[in-house]
Amino acid sequence: MGERMVVIGADATGMSAASQARRLRDGDDLEIVVFDKGNYTSYSACGIPYWVGGDVTEAEDLIARTPAEHRARDIDLRLRTEVIEIDPAARRVLSLELDTGTHTWTRYDKLVVATGAVPIRPPLPGVDAEGVYGVQTLDDGQALITALASATGREAVVVGAGYIGVEMAEALIRRGFRVTMVTRSAEPMTTLDPDMGALIRKAMAGMGIRLVTGTEVTGMRTDATGRVRAVTTADTEFAADVVVLGIGVRPATDVARRAGLPLGESGGLLTDLSQRVRGHDDIWAGGDCVEVLDLVSGELRHIALGTHANKHGQVIGTGVGGGYATFPGVVGTAISKVCDLEVGRTGLGEQYARRAGLQFHVVTIESTGRAGYFPGAEPMTVKMLAERRTGRLLGVQIVGGDGAAKRVDTAAVALTARMTVEQMTALDLGYAPPFSPVWDPVLVAARAAARAVSRGG
Amino acid sequence: MGERMVVIGADATGMSAASQARRLRDGDDLEIVVFDKGNYTSYSACGIPYWVGGDVTEAEDLIARTPAEHRARDIDLRLRTEVIEIDPAARRVLSLELDTGTHTWTRYDKLVVATGAVPIRPPLPGVDAEGVYGVQTLDDGQALITALASATGREAVVVGAGYIGVEMAEALIRRGFRVTMVTRSAEPMTTLDPDMGALIRKAMAGMGIRLVTGTEVTGMRTDATGRVRAVTTADTEFAADVVVLGIGVRPATDVARRAGLPLGESGGLLTDLSQRVRGHDDIWAGGDCVEVLDLVSGELRHIALGTHANKHGQVIGTGVGGGYATFPGVVGTAISKVCDLEVGRTGLGEQYARRAGLQFHVVTIESTGRAGYFPGAEPMTVKMLAERRTGRLLGVQIVGGDGAAKRVDTAAVALTARMTVEQMTALDLGYAPPFSPVWDPVLVAARAAARAVSRGG
Repeated sequence: MGERMVVIGADATGMSAASQARRLRDGDDLEIVVFDKGNYTSYSACGIPYWVGGDVTEAEDLIARTPAEHRARDIDLRLRTEVIEIDPAARRVLSLELDTGTHTWTRYDKLVVATGAVPIRPPLPGVDAEGVYGVQTLDDGQALITALASATGREAVVVGAGYIGVEMAEALIRRGFRVTMVTRSAEPMTTLDPDMGALIRKAMAGMGIRLVTGTEVTGMRTDATGRVRAVTTADTEFAADVVVLGIGVRPATDVARRAGLPLGESGGLLTDLSQRVRGHDDIWAGGDCVEVLDLVSGELRHIALGTHANKHGQVIGTGVGGGYATFPGVVGTAISKVCDLEVGRTGLGEQYARRAGLQFHVVTIESTGRAGYFPGAEPMTVKMLAERRTGRLLGVQIVGGDGAAKRVDTAAVALTARMTVEQMTALDLGYAPPFSPVWDPVLVAARAAARAVSRGG
Repeated sequence: MGERMVVIGADATGMSAASQARRLRDGDDLEIVVFDKGNYTSYSACGIPYWVGGDVTEAEDLIARTPAEHRARDIDLRLRTEVIEIDPAARRVLSLELDTGTHTWTRYDKLVVATGAVPIRPPLPGVDAEGVYGVQTLDDGQALITALASATGREAVVVGAGYIGVEMAEALIRRGFRVTMVTRSAEPMTTLDPDMGALIRKAMAGMGIRLVTGTEVTGMRTDATGRVRAVTTADTEFAADVVVLGIGVRPATDVARRAGLPLGESGGLLTDLSQRVRGHDDIWAGGDCVEVLDLVSGELRHIALGTHANKHGQVIGTGVGGGYATFPGVVGTAISKVCDLEVGRTGLGEQYARRAGLQFHVVTIESTGRAGYFPGAEPMTVKMLAERRTGRLLGVQIVGGDGAAKRVDTAAVALTARMTVEQMTALDLGYAPPFSPVWDPVLVAARAAARAVSRGG
């Protein structure tokens, strides 16, 4: 008799883990049962803004592998079935079929918690009203698209200025809505430092997005039917036929918490390097519901990203399958395309670096994404942080035209290798006039940073 | 009384060195004299194919800094003046003014040899005939453009299939010529392995370039006026109103050789890490006339590229200026845009790696430059070499659409950090649907390579 692997969550981590375990162990040896409260499997949540914006036309396009494909690989997939309790002592989970109300206990030998994240809903009046949407799952996206199609007015308000908020603001503009973004932050794109975020503000204004910064939302005004009509602040209100929450996400770990599994400061599950939940040899966790090691600061953080989720799934599936794999950590890379600008960041921003006890030099340089004389050369701004005294690279932020976003990969590898900015000045990066000036913008920044380190202070 | 710095060659290395030295030492302390036999300073040789092809309209666009700008910074620039002898014992150089025939000896305290490279002209009948062009300097480019404008026929032949040859073939097509490329190699783009070069062959054919591979050129047939009319092979000949040599370049070190300066196997000058010529404390050299340390193979190589040339200039200027800087070496990165394809390579190809005594696993994967569902996602082929047993990354070649070329930078940094392909699988590379699938193509290749290493053999 074989073992049973139970997976909670059928998105990137859960299904990667299930698929990888199945590759290593066949059905006689390992039964695999996957629960998910939603309707979809293995989808690209990061693609949702492009679906809402119309670049992508079908939800199906965002699905890497359908339920039927998973089932054909001998994975017992139970959709619209929510796991509401984990009982680690008895090695079992309690599930609820949403359509029938049926409760069932299922025993496991290996458990994978891949419950993802949920949009943060601040405790404000009206935040749960009809017309207020978070955008985290494909089901969320479908609900929003349906609402947009049937909306009676054209006023949209995005609350929060994280990258999903900015991407959604652009998507809503493209859907023909008038868009107001209200955020307490000083600049949009809060994954960037404010000085770099200011570049995004300009591009957003250029697209016709109204940006209200430094402003706290106090609630949602609803009509008699309970439908949202406006987003309110201390001073005024902004009419809203639809509201999108872009404040960020938190780990979906309520069930894990009740089961006594260890959580970090952010509420994410704590795991070892093989993604096993600390203190539990038979429970793994990964993706948006765990904390990851930030290799630059040495701290644990909650960073919800599909890349980590997929890597975690691979590591977990390999471990359950009897192999060996680890996830060493992240350096904080994130890229985005917003309002015709490419945006990339990796490593630490100023605020976080300071909070982590680091002291550093900061440089910001202007360059172009192609040789200056080459047609279509667009500006590129690179900001770089280097540790005081050691000169170690701490972080890079880039905003610009073609080629800006993926340029942070160079810095991401340098961060992983713990290079100094002086070492970076000698990097043998690709040069050809259509793709880069002879000194790549990242090298220009590294040279400036190395000078700052060498001057000392 | 101050010192005198003499620089031979007014392109990237020479003028970077002069400018950097001037930044560190003023005119009272350091006199700077620069000789160049040509008419231009500080230009982008890599931009010449785009100038010939029409993307760039003026030679001036390719010039980063004009003679007047250099002179305004107190640099004594003597153009159309060739240095024909170096006398290290007496610390002096003999120069010849090309327009007047005047010979002059000039003493130096610090000498910089930055004489660049010259196109290889195989010893074939007619190779020096009128109508046969190498393309290495801006003067070369100007001569070719003039010839194209006055050509009576529309037949162009490119001899050789290196990246400059391929770029020039495309440029000539865009100038309205019928283009034939004749090469003894099996596939075009000899900076790539043949299996990757085959992808370029298809794109070239799609543009209407006739490709004759595996064929040795035996000479040039000329007419009564001494003008080239055809490129001949053992079996046939190809009509030619203009011929472009794209066989490669060799270090321009004839003068250095006569002076007894040390040269390597390729004919490039040998330097230490601070770019001082070995055995000569007061002579520096850099750019296309030196050999560089290949950090992957541990061998010295001649790699003519503007990026290294500029870095060398910085290092030399810092040294002459009294500071400290070194050039640690290269990993062999080169990128190009040809026939609507992006091409990148870094590290070692199969043939070179084998010759360097390395044994390795090879993987080739297919992916896309964006999320598969995102509009405009184009194919991308990634080939990766990993050392047997250690799993160390040895090289990467990428051919594909948007974003293919600069993706090798990720591998270039990983090579510099001597990462294993297993380590690379965990790299935190940027992901967003417009820029990458959730597993970046480089990560997909690294995973495949890591599996190959782990299987052993």
